[in-house]
Amino acid sequence: MLLALLLLAAPVPPDVASRLVGGALTSGVAYSRLEELTDTIGPRLSGSAGAEAAVRWALKKFQQDGLAARLEPVKVPHWVRGEESGEVLPAPGIAGHPLALTALGNSVGGTVTAEVIEARSLSELGQSARGKIVFFNHSMTTPAGYGQFVELRSHGPSAAARAGAVGMLVRSLATASLRSPHTGMTGYDPEVQKIPAAAVSTEDAELLHRLLQRGAVRARLSLGCRMLPDADSANVVAEVRGREKPDEVVLLGAHLDSWDLAQGANDDGAGVAMVMEAGRLIASLPQRPRRTVRIVLFMNEENGLAGGKAYAAAHQAELARHVAALEADSGAGRPLSIRLHAGEGGRALLRPWLSALDGLEIPLEDGDASGADLGPMSTSQVPLVLVHPDGTHYFDIHHSAADTFDKIDPENLAKNSAAIAVVAWALAEMPEPLPRPPQPEHEPQDAPRPAAHR
Amino acid sequence: MLLALLLLAAPVPPDVASRLVGGALTSGVAYSRLEELTDTIGPRLSGSAGAEAAVRWALKKFQQDGLAARLEPVKVPHWVRGEESGEVLPAPGIAGHPLALTALGNSVGGTVTAEVIEARSLSELGQSARGKIVFFNHSMTTPAGYGQFVELRSHGPSAAARAGAVGMLVRSLATASLRSPHTGMTGYDPEVQKIPAAAVSTEDAELLHRLLQRGAVRARLSLGCRMLPDADSANVVAEVRGREKPDEVVLLGAHLDSWDLAQGANDDGAGVAMVMEAGRLIASLPQRPRRTVRIVLFMNEENGLAGGKAYAAAHQAELARHVAALEADSGAGRPLSIRLHAGEGGRALLRPWLSALDGLEIPLEDGDASGADLGPMSTSQVPLVLVHPDGTHYFDIHHSAADTFDKIDPENLAKNSAAIAVVAWALAEMPEPLPRPPQPEHEPQDAPRPAAHR
Repeated sequence: MLLALLLLAAPVPPDVASRLVGGALTSGVAYSRLEELTDTIGPRLSGSAGAEAAVRWALKKFQQDGLAARLEPVKVPHWVRGEESGEVLPAPGIAGHPLALTALGNSVGGTVTAEVIEARSLSELGQSARGKIVFFNHSMTTPAGYGQFVELRSHGPSAAARAGAVGMLVRSLATASLRSPHTGMTGYDPEVQKIPAAAVSTEDAELLHRLLQRGAVRARLSLGCRMLPDADSANVVAEVRGREKPDEVVLLGAHLDSWDLAQGANDDGAGVAMVMEAGRLIASLPQRPRRTVRIVLFMNEENGLAGGKAYAAAHQAELARHVAALEADSGAGRPLSIRLHAGEGGRALLRPWLSALDGLEIPLEDGDASGADLGPMSTSQVPLVLVHPDGTHYFDIHHSAADTFDKIDPENLAKNSAAIAVVAWALAEMPEPLPRPPQPEHEPQDAPRPAAHR
Repeated sequence: MLLALLLLAAPVPPDVASRLVGGALTSGVAYSRLEELTDTIGPRLSGSAGAEAAVRWALKKFQQDGLAARLEPVKVPHWVRGEESGEVLPAPGIAGHPLALTALGNSVGGTVTAEVIEARSLSELGQSARGKIVFFNHSMTTPAGYGQFVELRSHGPSAAARAGAVGMLVRSLATASLRSPHTGMTGYDPEVQKIPAAAVSTEDAELLHRLLQRGAVRARLSLGCRMLPDADSANVVAEVRGREKPDEVVLLGAHLDSWDLAQGANDDGAGVAMVMEAGRLIASLPQRPRRTVRIVLFMNEENGLAGGKAYAAAHQAELARHVAALEADSGAGRPLSIRLHAGEGGRALLRPWLSALDGLEIPLEDGDASGADLGPMSTSQVPLVLVHPDGTHYFDIHHSAADTFDKIDPENLAKNSAAIAVVAWALAEMPEPLPRPPQPEHEPQDAPRPAAHR
């Protein structure tokens, strides 16, 4: 009786807790894997040689870890950056200035030389934009500003083109800068002209703003980027097959692609390393959990979401048996909490299964637990769970050349891996799955996701 | 009697104190001047069009401020950067990586492709460096590390060449980085081969270090820089002529040149703006001070010190009548103290004259008060004074593309200007000059100054 009570109070066998948490905190595998991914493969933009090398690498690592792994084909956009530069042209009494800029992902290339006008919203453009380079400025200073201003990046080029502009610059969506521009996906409205679009560093945004107080500013913008034909790529899918209910799936996701400017250590090499480590640790337990733990390394999160869409399409019939999904794509800061988006009572059901994380001070809470690659399955009411890391410095390096391995703290990476492993095992082992959330999230699949870290 | 005591206790007339401090804190002139210098002229490397524009600009501003201003000719090195790039070459199992690098000032250009070896000191190079690119790594994390490791930058190329190396990379001397390399002057021993030399960002230094743990690393280094024939330039010298002892001089210095990667807002546009503002405020007083206040905007501090040397040479006969010298070249952080290097009792003599700064909490203390441009006059035992700003973030941006106007805090710039104005006026007005320091500083004029902010 006492034993039964104890088991009820602590449903996770002590050896499982210690293997998952202790293993993550002491193995160093996630950190060394991430180093290998970032240093031996490097940038992994969809369609690039790096992306394909990463697919092969991940497949092999999963197999080495004892997971059943496979590739699921995805057709991805293949955008290449080429050479890029820009400058403020000299004018009487004003020196020219080079601009620290970088093309937005999916931008068309081209060279434009025109007067610059500054705007602070998509809606304020009028006749004055005709023939100009529209410069979207904003006041992002904290991570919350990303959701507020990302529409300037994603919809700015077409808003500017609709008003007759010939080019677009946007202030980088960044919380720190040392003259470091941040790229990110943009899109074009098929109805309007596609114009070259780039992000300038926050310093250069300040410069443009100041120079415009002095008078007219002309700038040159030269982007060598172009879109090549779609390329063949893949999501990498690996499983620890459930011992009792193999058709019920706990999905752990991260994205294997990265921007091209850096190694993509934080976005999203870290997430890849975490979910791989969770899979490795669960696979190494003496007994497989009740349900299947499936790890999906999505391709093309950054500039198209083709992997997320392909997964949802290929697995449509199976999504009702996805008992939970987690995406690790929020960096590798200290894990602050586990966020759950499920039906009523879900939190109370899950909580006792997470006691192994008490020592790490990672409480369970309700909250936004979405992930970009999980968006396409949002109509299927899959319960979502998120290990939520401290994001204070996430946008210091996000989508910039500074997203490098040295920024990763090994201890925090390990703690995130531990939390994901514990949550995934719990969701796969609980006798009954969590109640599904009451309504589908009302989010169009193709719209930019303002609050996400894309 | 009471009045006499009051005057003794507070030798600075209240209206002088309020005009200098209040003027600096409310005029906004230093800040708008700095904006004008950085935005309308921009980078000012010796020999460049920007440097010459800055000379003309400063002369005109001094004249507008009512100072007697002139140019004193200086022959300066004329080094140009050109295009530059570098990469780690791909190897079996290892992707190639672009390197964020920038040529060291005065480096020769050229393209070298060779294996990289890592070193941590000038002395450890042996036969293994032959035919290699020597990569000097170090562990600078705080401003104090600059003095400790700057020899790797200044003497590294010749140390490497002496060991047979064909190229040199040095980890940037930086306290923060977002993939932002820091340039800085290097020099060549005339006895050995001049080899191309560049700084890599701290992130790229970490990458090289990690890759070298995996095996051999080959890199390509392509520098388009070259040294052109020396150019004609000038120090800009302006004076508020002393009313009683015009031949006794209080020198306020800063340097007009900057590196070419950025606007040189912090190094040393800020110093230029401060000493100009001190001069403007002193010139606007109803009565000129007893001695001459001379403002010298030196040319070529960054890559040659030609201006400092030319000034010391041209004014050799007069240096014994330089009663004090101050250089503002430590950034524009909050002023923490006034440092004095003078003869015994100097501090007690000066202190009552600085009471106007009590409200700003800028105490007088002994300490290193040197400045790079003042080095060549060090044999003349000129008392040195320094308004010492908080340098915590100085090396975050120093010599990098991020040394831009937006980094300047207007309030701290104004406080520094106020402090310099008060100190300069005091030194020019005190009945007797400060005692000179007992011994000349034993510092060879051409050696790199480890503790300085060059």
